[in-house]
Amino acid sequence: MAKISGLLYSHSANIIHADQHLDRDEGLFFMRLEWSLENFDMAAFERAFAELARGLKLRWRMQLSARRMKVAMMVSRYQHCLADLLHRQQTGELHCDIPLILSNHRDAEKLAAFHGIPFYAIPVTQENRAQAEAEQIRLIGEHACDLIVLARYMQVLSPGFVARFPQRIINVHHSFLPAFTGARPYHAAFSRGVKIIGATSHYVTDVLDEGPIIDQDVMRVSHRDQTENLIEKGRDLERMVLSRAVKWHTEGRILCYGNKTVIFD
Amino acid sequence: MAKISGLLYSHSANIIHADQHLDRDEGLFFMRLEWSLENFDMAAFERAFAELARGLKLRWRMQLSARRMKVAMMVSRYQHCLADLLHRQQTGELHCDIPLILSNHRDAEKLAAFHGIPFYAIPVTQENRAQAEAEQIRLIGEHACDLIVLARYMQVLSPGFVARFPQRIINVHHSFLPAFTGARPYHAAFSRGVKIIGATSHYVTDVLDEGPIIDQDVMRVSHRDQTENLIEKGRDLERMVLSRAVKWHTEGRILCYGNKTVIFD
Amino acid sequence: MAKISGLLYSHSANIIHADQHLDRDEGLFFMRLEWSLENFDMAAFERAFAELARGLKLRWRMQLSARRMKVAMMVSRYQHCLADLLHRQQTGELHCDIPLILSNHRDAEKLAAFHGIPFYAIPVTQENRAQAEAEQIRLIGEHACDLIVLARYMQVLSPGFVARFPQRIINVHHSFLPAFTGARPYHAAFSRGVKIIGATSHYVTDVLDEGPIIDQDVMRVSHRDQTENLIEKGRDLERMVLSRAVKWHTEGRILCYGNKTVIFD
Amino acid sequence: MAKISGLLYSHSANIIHADQHLDRDEGLFFMRLEWSLENFDMAAFERAFAELARGLKLRWRMQLSARRMKVAMMVSRYQHCLADLLHRQQTGELHCDIPLILSNHRDAEKLAAFHGIPFYAIPVTQENRAQAEAEQIRLIGEHACDLIVLARYMQVLSPGFVARFPQRIINVHHSFLPAFTGARPYHAAFSRGVKIIGATSHYVTDVLDEGPIIDQDVMRVSHRDQTENLIEKGRDLERMVLSRAVKWHTEGRILCYGNKTVIFD
Repeated sequence: MAKISGLLYSHSANIIHADQHLDRDEGLFFMRLEWSLENFDMAAFERAFAELARGLKLRWRMQLSARRMKVAMMVSRYQHCLADLLHRQQTGELHCDIPLILSNHRDAEKLAAFHGIPFYAIPVTQENRAQAEAEQIRLIGEHACDLIVLARYMQVLSPGFVARFPQRIINVHHSFLPAFTGARPYHAAFSRGVKIIGATSHYVTDVLDEGPIIDQDVMRVSHRDQTENLIEKGRDLERMVLSRAVKWHTEGRILCYGNKTVIFD
Repeated sequence: MAKISGLLYSHSANIIHADQHLDRDEGLFFMRLEWSLENFDMAAFERAFAELARGLKLRWRMQLSARRMKVAMMVSRYQHCLADLLHRQQTGELHCDIPLILSNHRDAEKLAAFHGIPFYAIPVTQENRAQAEAEQIRLIGEHACDLIVLARYMQVLSPGFVARFPQRIINVHHSFLPAFTGARPYHAAFSRGVKIIGATSHYVTDVLDEGPIIDQDVMRVSHRDQTENLIEKGRDLERMVLSRAVKWHTEGRILCYGNKTVIFD
Repeated sequence: MAKISGLLYSHSANIIHADQHLDRDEGLFFMRLEWSLENFDMAAFERAFAELARGLKLRWRMQLSARRMKVAMMVSRYQHCLADLLHRQQTGELHCDIPLILSNHRDAEKLAAFHGIPFYAIPVTQENRAQAEAEQIRLIGEHACDLIVLARYMQVLSPGFVARFPQRIINVHHSFLPAFTGARPYHAAFSRGVKIIGATSHYVTDVLDEGPIIDQDVMRVSHRDQTENLIEKGRDLERMVLSRAVKWHTEGRILCYGNKTVIFD
Repeated sequence: MAKISGLLYSHSANIIHADQHLDRDEGLFFMRLEWSLENFDMAAFERAFAELARGLKLRWRMQLSARRMKVAMMVSRYQHCLADLLHRQQTGELHCDIPLILSNHRDAEKLAAFHGIPFYAIPVTQENRAQAEAEQIRLIGEHACDLIVLARYMQVLSPGFVARFPQRIINVHHSFLPAFTGARPYHAAFSRGVKIIGATSHYVTDVLDEGPIIDQDVMRVSHRDQTENLIEKGRDLERMVLSRAVKWHTEGRILCYGNKTVIFD
């Protein structure tokens, strides 16, 4: 901390945001620094910092706020998360570009058109999965996407797909993980008689619903709520946890370690 | 509903609280009625109602608000829930009597004495479990308890014990069920990296942590929270979900069906 | 209660939802009953009920679930609430028709077109207010609207306008009322240093921000949140409290009395 | 930041917790650092730091975690906050000593005795206020208290009293400030028909209920809740916001500036 902040100081950086986290059990130190580039010699700093980082054996990344991430959306039939993300992107709440929307259905085509975003419908079946994924990966690559958001995309991605984008695929699961993993979590919640429902956004790993949790939110329900009420109320939770996850990721506020996330808000 | 409210009307009952619930999938109708006994001929009503209930094949119970339930407390070493319940009982928030406190340790003895409640320390080991439970059951019976509250009692009760008190044992589990059943849920929550922790009060059945849920509450946590912080924050949740469950039970606001509860609040 | 449920029973009504509320201080009894019209002789029931209601001096209303309310939307520049309501209406979450959108700006025109809803831009100034309101009222009447929703409409309606639509105008105020009434509540919240922000949906009366509260929601904030963060976070609250209010109103779940609401959920 | 962390590094400090906050509008930078004293030459560091702080014109304070603050409790008749704080202190959740309890009533005497804490009942009337406060101040001084906690102390302290303990008196107000300042906030909340109630802990300044907010919490209520239900539910909120405020203060996690707090959690 001393050395890095000292280096920034010596390069006259004007720090905007600084946050740290110390995991003493693991012996890890995390730091996020955000500074203005006004009158700042980036090239000189990068050279000096690279040397420092080598000496301290840091794992680090540098990200330009001005550079907008490119985000690929994947969606199936339910459009509430997608509509919400597109609206937030349009109003500037999400600082990113959305160069394409991929779907295994055509339902979202009109919504995509309204926002002027290229839409690709690629049906996925048991038989053509490998081929469909190859096509998806090609399109994502063609548009140079930094992040893939599964906005209620109801197909399980293959391990090969997931491995290509480590910590770059965000999913929303419609339960309070680790409760109710797998299919139809609202039905399971209703059947268990819970008094609170939830939703979870997380990075996708090769174990279903087990990736690092980014955000969770919950809502109180009662015996009056039938499964369809849980589904409806849950949509608000899904929208919020997914949009916050995308926002934090695109702003470089998430650090992953082990199977956890540090959120520098 | 028509016939019961009609009967009450014909007996000049002054209704204080009325609530219903309809589970259309199960074809069940639930009703809770609370009325004043001023100028009310209870004996006559009871005769008429019993006949009506037979005709309609109702499952019902009648409870006098003036009669305070007797509640046995069981506790191990952590006293935060017990101290909280005793305080609420003392201030009149809980309308019940607490004739005895049972523990497998002596830690809570002073607290019991402060509140003037008989305290019985009955150590429980692998070997003497049957004998210890027999002694507990004897004491609970001797004090004619209507309800048993496990206020962080860390021993698993035998199926025989549980079977004796159906829907009359309330436990608090220190997680958001069904997530993190079993031992050390805060450690499991920390290790999974959840962003929200919870606590659950429920009726005890013979399957551990699977009984009908009465109440749940949650609190946001972050990467800054170590396991000990989760434990500390969770204590507030445990106090609240357990005290609400005891309050609702003693006020006759809980109806169980299947593995669920209807809470008439 | 006995007489009404008895009457329904004698007409073989199949009750779907029943809820009551008793305000003992005010000596008021509220009841909401929902029943199926299958094999139900509505005309006969209406005659019998009208007579009963006269005898009991009830204030009552009857509403057909099958009849969709017509809702006029009014909006200024911020479109997050409008976009949210239109999406919910489109997916069937809101059971209503939206025959027109009124605005004092043109910003929402494209959004209206996407949803195929007639859009009227009527600029409002200090000078033309009376004339503008007359035009708004004419259009609302022409489309036979049952409800007017101010989805972040930033003009204060005149007492004359409000008086025409008692308990039929719903507004969202971007604070936790009664804190921070009036203009720029997020700025006021920031300046006061609150740790939680809120939003409120309420019926509009002739006293600004003083009408009966329908719903409120809140979110935790911290010293890290600047005014612009409060504004952004608050948008999620505004969407939720407004959409819930519209949903409950269109489903006939709200009863007003005094300056309060009973919500039969 | 660079210089301070550099100084700590050069003294081989082992940092345990580091947090910063930047208020760009006000041009203020806040930092909290916590480090271990193992193999740390405190005297040498203090000399070097004092010099550095002078040069940088820092406002700073240094606090030894090992030194337990002394906290005076003031209470009137309602004991729920006091009982809660004493329990938390006893179990080690609050790292402080409580050398005395002051009250204008005798109700809490038994509770004080149970915890072995000297109890002083000093009646306060319109006439003897000055004298009573003088006695309170004498006792607080005699026990060298660092902090005064108003655990539902229902007398307004004089400006002279308050001025003696700047940012060293913590109060709990039983509403979601700035809503419902002054007396009987639950009655006011009931009468306004709010759907959420709250509680607020704050530092006491000479303007009633206007001091810097430390923590707030809220709970959903409904039309079913009468004033007495709000009072009862609110007690849980009061306990939580007050105990968190005391915990944070005694751990040195609160920085005040303007009329706000920074909470380094």
